Amino acid sequence: MISLRLQIRLGVDTRIGHGKIQLLEEIDRTGSISAAARAVGMNYRRGWDLIDQMNRAFESPLVTGTTGGLGGAALTQLGRDIVAHYRAMEEKVSQAATSDLQAIEELLERARKA
Amino acid sequence: MISLRLQIRLGVDTRIGHGKIQLLEEIDRTGSISAAARAVGMNYRRGWDLIDQMNRAFESPLVTGTTGGLGGAALTQLGRDIVAHYRAMEEKVSQAATSDLQAIEELLERARKA
Repeated sequence: MISLRLQIRLGVDTRIGHGKIQLLEEIDRTGSISAAARAVGMNYRRGWDLIDQMNRAFESPLVTGTTGGLGGAALTQLGRDIVAHYRAMEEKVSQAATSDLQAIEELLERARKA
Repeated sequence: MISLRLQIRLGVDTRIGHGKIQLLEEIDRTGSISAAARAVGMNYRRGWDLIDQMNRAFESPLVTGTTGGLGGAALTQLGRDIVAHYRAMEEKVSQAATSDLQAIEELLERARKA
């Protein structure tokens, strides 16, 4: 199975990829950082750290209610906009990449049979 | 500055991204694993390990002449095909991603000014 992962780099040290976007989506769905972290297989501390990294990179919160610990977390409009653009980009990119990704998969299958 | 990085995942544990592709290109250019590793800022051992990972994943070499250590390394046709498809994909993906990436950059700039 071949698949493609995307990572957005903001400046030198901030990266936004699959894991952070999934975490944001789960916060939107569950309203809780701990539930969101659990849903994506992270502990609370790791989830909190990733959100903190994003909030700092944008110098504006993507998630509010991060101080209480349990419950009450929500995406800001900024957080929602970033998730939406990431997913829209992923969809377009995935279509654009299909033919070359298939070609690489065929090379892989042929090489393994040879 | 915002930018996008791609990573191809083959199965569970093999990833091909920017670093490995650059290394392959430098091997093609220099004919030497040590020169190639140096050009991309790795030590020889790290360069060799990455090539070994790719050769194993494809069960066929992407690079030949990896045993001697100094000089005499070259890409196989498989290695060249993979680099070509990766770069072609990157070009298409980068066009497909432009508008959403710009939108995220504008969100970033606006958030930092707010």
